[in-house]
Amino acid sequence: ICFPVPQGRAHGSSFAHRGELRRAKRIVVKLGSAVVTRGDECGLALGRLASIVEQVAMLQNQGREMMIVTSGAVAFGKQRLRHEILLSQSVRQALHSGHNQLKDMSMPVLEARACAAAGQSGLMALYEAMFTQYSTCTAQVLVTNLDFHDDQKRQNLNSTLQELLRMNIVPIINTNDAVVPPPEPNSDLLGVISIKDNDSLAARLAVEMKADLLIALSDVEGLYNSPPGTDDAKLIDIFYPGDQQSITYGTKSRVGIGGMEAKLCCKVKAALWALQGGTSVVIANGTHPKVTGHVITDIVEGKKVGTFFSEIKPAGPTVEHQTEMARNSGRTLASLHPDQRSEIICHLAELLTERKEEILAANKMDIDLAVNAGHLPPAMLKRLSLSPAKLNNLAIGLRQIAVAAQDSVGRVLRRTRVAHNLELEQIAVPIGVLLVIFEARPDCLPQVSALAIASGNALLLKGGKEAANTNRVLHQLTQEALSMHGVREAVQLVSTREEVEDLCRLDKMIDLIIPRGSSQLVRNIQRAAKGIPVLGHSEGICHVYVDAEASVDKVIKIVRDSKCDYPAACNAMETLLIHRDILRTPLFDQIIDMLRAERVKIHAGPQFASFLTFSPSAVKSMRTEYGDLECCIEVVDSMQEAVDHIHKYGSSHTDVIITENAEQFLQQLDSACVFWNASSRFADGYRFGLGAEVGISTARIHARGPVGLEGLLTTKWVLRGAGHTAADFSEQGTMKYLHENLPVEQPLAVQRDSN
Amino acid sequence: ICFPVPQGRAHGSSFAHRGELRRAKRIVVKLGSAVVTRGDECGLALGRLASIVEQVAMLQNQGREMMIVTSGAVAFGKQRLRHEILLSQSVRQALHSGHNQLKDMSMPVLEARACAAAGQSGLMALYEAMFTQYSTCTAQVLVTNLDFHDDQKRQNLNSTLQELLRMNIVPIINTNDAVVPPPEPNSDLLGVISIKDNDSLAARLAVEMKADLLIALSDVEGLYNSPPGTDDAKLIDIFYPGDQQSITYGTKSRVGIGGMEAKLCCKVKAALWALQGGTSVVIANGTHPKVTGHVITDIVEGKKVGTFFSEIKPAGPTVEHQTEMARNSGRTLASLHPDQRSEIICHLAELLTERKEEILAANKMDIDLAVNAGHLPPAMLKRLSLSPAKLNNLAIGLRQIAVAAQDSVGRVLRRTRVAHNLELEQIAVPIGVLLVIFEARPDCLPQVSALAIASGNALLLKGGKEAANTNRVLHQLTQEALSMHGVREAVQLVSTREEVEDLCRLDKMIDLIIPRGSSQLVRNIQRAAKGIPVLGHSEGICHVYVDAEASVDKVIKIVRDSKCDYPAACNAMETLLIHRDILRTPLFDQIIDMLRAERVKIHAGPQFASFLTFSPSAVKSMRTEYGDLECCIEVVDSMQEAVDHIHKYGSSHTDVIITENAEQFLQQLDSACVFWNASSRFADGYRFGLGAEVGISTARIHARGPVGLEGLLTTKWVLRGAGHTAADFSEQGTMKYLHENLPVEQPLAVQRDSN
Repeated sequence: ICFPVPQGRAHGSSFAHRGELRRAKRIVVKLGSAVVTRGDECGLALGRLASIVEQVAMLQNQGREMMIVTSGAVAFGKQRLRHEILLSQSVRQALHSGHNQLKDMSMPVLEARACAAAGQSGLMALYEAMFTQYSTCTAQVLVTNLDFHDDQKRQNLNSTLQELLRMNIVPIINTNDAVVPPPEPNSDLLGVISIKDNDSLAARLAVEMKADLLIALSDVEGLYNSPPGTDDAKLIDIFYPGDQQSITYGTKSRVGIGGMEAKLCCKVKAALWALQGGTSVVIANGTHPKVTGHVITDIVEGKKVGTFFSEIKPAGPTVEHQTEMARNSGRTLASLHPDQRSEIICHLAELLTERKEEILAANKMDIDLAVNAGHLPPAMLKRLSLSPAKLNNLAIGLRQIAVAAQDSVGRVLRRTRVAHNLELEQIAVPIGVLLVIFEARPDCLPQVSALAIASGNALLLKGGKEAANTNRVLHQLTQEALSMHGVREAVQLVSTREEVEDLCRLDKMIDLIIPRGSSQLVRNIQRAAKGIPVLGHSEGICHVYVDAEASVDKVIKIVRDSKCDYPAACNAMETLLIHRDILRTPLFDQIIDMLRAERVKIHAGPQFASFLTFSPSAVKSMRTEYGDLECCIEVVDSMQEAVDHIHKYGSSHTDVIITENAEQFLQQLDSACVFWNASSRFADGYRFGLGAEVGISTARIHARGPVGLEGLLTTKWVLRGAGHTAADFSEQGTMKYLHENLPVEQPLAVQRDSN
Repeated sequence: ICFPVPQGRAHGSSFAHRGELRRAKRIVVKLGSAVVTRGDECGLALGRLASIVEQVAMLQNQGREMMIVTSGAVAFGKQRLRHEILLSQSVRQALHSGHNQLKDMSMPVLEARACAAAGQSGLMALYEAMFTQYSTCTAQVLVTNLDFHDDQKRQNLNSTLQELLRMNIVPIINTNDAVVPPPEPNSDLLGVISIKDNDSLAARLAVEMKADLLIALSDVEGLYNSPPGTDDAKLIDIFYPGDQQSITYGTKSRVGIGGMEAKLCCKVKAALWALQGGTSVVIANGTHPKVTGHVITDIVEGKKVGTFFSEIKPAGPTVEHQTEMARNSGRTLASLHPDQRSEIICHLAELLTERKEEILAANKMDIDLAVNAGHLPPAMLKRLSLSPAKLNNLAIGLRQIAVAAQDSVGRVLRRTRVAHNLELEQIAVPIGVLLVIFEARPDCLPQVSALAIASGNALLLKGGKEAANTNRVLHQLTQEALSMHGVREAVQLVSTREEVEDLCRLDKMIDLIIPRGSSQLVRNIQRAAKGIPVLGHSEGICHVYVDAEASVDKVIKIVRDSKCDYPAACNAMETLLIHRDILRTPLFDQIIDMLRAERVKIHAGPQFASFLTFSPSAVKSMRTEYGDLECCIEVVDSMQEAVDHIHKYGSSHTDVIITENAEQFLQQLDSACVFWNASSRFADGYRFGLGAEVGISTARIHARGPVGLEGLLTTKWVLRGAGHTAADFSEQGTMKYLHENLPVEQPLAVQRDSN
């Protein structure tokens, strides 16, 4: 396997944002004592160290130059000396004890420098044994901070390390603790007097060696804006030294000199010093069991881990700030009159045609870039490109959404007189903040924005990089339309810098994620979303069942339409089920002839294959979504067997029966859409007459099947009383529940349509 | 720290079920080559080994006797010899190469026995270095299968190992590969001729040493009922040798002799042999990155990992089988007429009173057991115990649910004429299979069963161990009632053996989990549920805001009721917000006097504290749910500030305003329940008049706030056509969409109540 060698940065300037860290060629990884030594009782350090070695070796094998600055020799030596002392204290007792009673014995205080000396060899042996597993050589380098003050020593160190890196060897650097001056007391390493942490050493080394990146791992998460654990505390993703933010550490570290303040001082000073010297810095937690296995590679891949120190503050707000703005502005949007939300949408529709030159010019830039890059397939290029006609159609669609907006937020769904003067209403309200992720398809942007505005939701938009210019203009127009009622910030366009995976982790800030695009996109997002519901479906294994009582003229029409109208759609047929009685009839031949004429590749299910002398290729799995001119044919003995087959192999998306007597099938089949004598292709919000389509869901809670605007709404209960208490209704109380259902207005849509 | 020493089993008989594995005292862990040696390119083995060592050391420290049977010396030695050969081939080239080109060089075929000899020392050194981290001693023992055939040798081995275990040393056993006979070819370890796997050695050793448990880790998941990857393949949780099940391995293992068949033979034979000898066996995957860190401890804790070999087949069906039965029977339940579902529920209500002696007798057994065990607090004992009066009330509640059942499944929610002869209906249907987890509160069982029956859902019940006898009888009565319409199996009681965590992982089988119990239970289940939605709320941080325009007589009543009526409830007030203008009025003193009289402990928010000369204790966080006679008081300057405060610190459960002019608050506040001049305690399904209460949800999708039967329903779309295709509606087509909304019947509830 051949890896591309990373480029590294122009020397003297650090990277501007996390995405650039991928280019880091020379990287210093600093491991604090908390990372290298044991945990409290579960002793995680070994696994931690192994996975850190693994990541470093992997990055080294990618052609990067890796250096490790390690602490831990003291703790390692302590372990060893302790063991030695115990053995000499009572060899017999320890060896013959059935249980591990070593821990209970009292220990003398050990001198830190002795521990360091005893630990150094063991620690290095461990690193070497581990790196050998990856065919990676290591070299031990012991230095003290003083070595940097002497020019000659510094130069010697520099050329030694350069030579090691050139030979593809990972230098493992530690302070020469056995010879450094005054040890300081430390309450954590029980019975051991500790020595200073390696932060400034790592920073000096990184700058001296012109490293691109310094990753400082310890047991703190990063920098916080206020003390962690308090109500407002947030981890700072990117720290700009220019900002006079007040900062605090992640958790009180157990290993270190002094309290939080001292440690903060020491760590941040070291980081800022390295940054000034041109090395980017990330401070992160290297002790968290769930992430340690990929913390270093995640950082190098640009993911949001810990706190990144950057000199250059980007122009736009952070995505967290955008979400805040969207939520606040969204609350105002939700409180507008429905007419005002409609006005905004109509105004956006106007802007799409009025300002089409501006839009098309931006779109042309995107297309030119894509064509020059030459990697977009024609179908994607087609989706990416806009035209005056497309914009007109978009505007028409938006006006329909504006009509639907009249009948959403604030609609009363239920009214109950709970008791005298105590009335309850259930009201439709927006879900909150939506995150819509779409691919290189810029027409999504105004559509989705209109849906969000109509339903009073705040919206974060994350579009494909390929449409960046078009999206920027379309988003400006959307904000222009929103401004007419003072809710400009309710729709936010997330920077193309942001990783989808990072967005899917904002679980306290985003209420619903809607992926618009390929089933692969949906699957990825369902996997990445932690604690945020995802509206969508990733599978559409749709069946058409031709019953014994099927009417011949309907069969050919419906099967052709279901499979061939648009084979890539999620509502296209994937499996054709045929009643056994049809097998030897002319209808069967007609079906096969039609599929052949349409060039549909046929796969045979096991039952079907057993009936044929020469069978087509056998299916691998009857749970396959071909998404192409391909399908599986299987034979069943009865309608009941068809139902059972679909329950077993289907994805509950859309299933069709062709027959003259369908009620049993319609009743029993448990799919989101069950059709009788109609093509599966009707499973679609627009075709269903839901007005605006939000998507199709195969979930079993919230919306199911094609989802209209109501999928973007939830409800709240409003109770109006006059001093009522629960005690009033107790056995001793004076009041009685009435629970009278009161009439609610018919939804506007019905009124409108029945005119 | 002192660990209880596990008991172990009675010798000669293996453990009957997984839960008993906790008692395993002597454990053999067998590591296949795939576990010890590297992965394909990412080289995970080291981290894997480290975490295995960690788990073994931890179990050893618990007082268990651990033995390791390890493979991997061959691969380890191969790595080493390869390195040596390369170095001698071209030292200069290798050392001066900027990139790692070692991989590209062609290698001679190495002899396996030579590799084994070269690898043995390195492997042992690695184990020793790792175990030293946990203050655990190891000993190397090399054996061959032949050693077991010679009685003298076997006895020597036995007494050596016994002595090592007695000295609290972990024996690490490997085949003496350097001296064993015919090596066999192996395609995986490129360029190395491999030797036999260690399965039979581990089995022999386990039986010889009378081990309680043999954990055999390799790269297969366990046994499957049919070839993995095929449509019907399922991992076998427990394998009973008596069953003539057809079985297959998890994944084709890359290391081993011959193909799957040979390996299956070898592994299963070894496992069965050990089982016959009285040692329990679990076969599991030790290479899966996400679980390796706890695979051994999980197995010892009785979790469902891999395949457990057991000689004794328990009487009842497995939970997977129960779920299947429930789903099938539930489908029939859903297809019954609403009257039939009501009949079942009414019959169950009758049985509760008719058969009360039987129920109360079982309940007495549970209470006696709990009293004798003496660990149940009085409040729990009260909840556990049933009485004739409680049963009567239960029956009354069930009859109400029977009425509600008339108006649920099958209700048409929307009708649309899509086109001529093409009609669409949206129909309420059951969600599918519900899992309800409840604590020692047996009255939950008939209630929840009635709710499931009313909504046509299949139900798995998992009750607290303390109520096992009562639950068994109540469940029998439920099944008796269900039998009247042939759907006996729709409600299943899960064995108390099953772990809640395992149930929460059945994500393809269960559609919705409903925890009924403490907020701690809900939190645990929300954490454990992987991919299954959970209906419930874990937090209720409810606010009461006393506005400047509050009417004095309402304030005292509502604040008292909200806080003191039932302080442990989720809808009890936690924070009292007071408008600044009230601070210096008599009303303020009245509020404080009332809270003091009710013995409510007051915590002061920062604003409130700043107004007082002598403040009560400051709050730690304004996001605290006290669940007791405690609350936080904070001061705000305006209604808007109250709204902002609640948005920031609240949990969107229930929030109250006391004022004479509330519309702004009611409109802006985004909580599930927003009340005006009424106690927060009204947030409850029964008080809302929803009939049966399923629970309270603070989620933003699906049901929100108090949830009635409709929270157990989803919808499906039924389209009835006459051969319609999407192509008919294309530009070239002959049809036009009408999208006419057709009237639907008013829900029965409204008709009923307005009579």
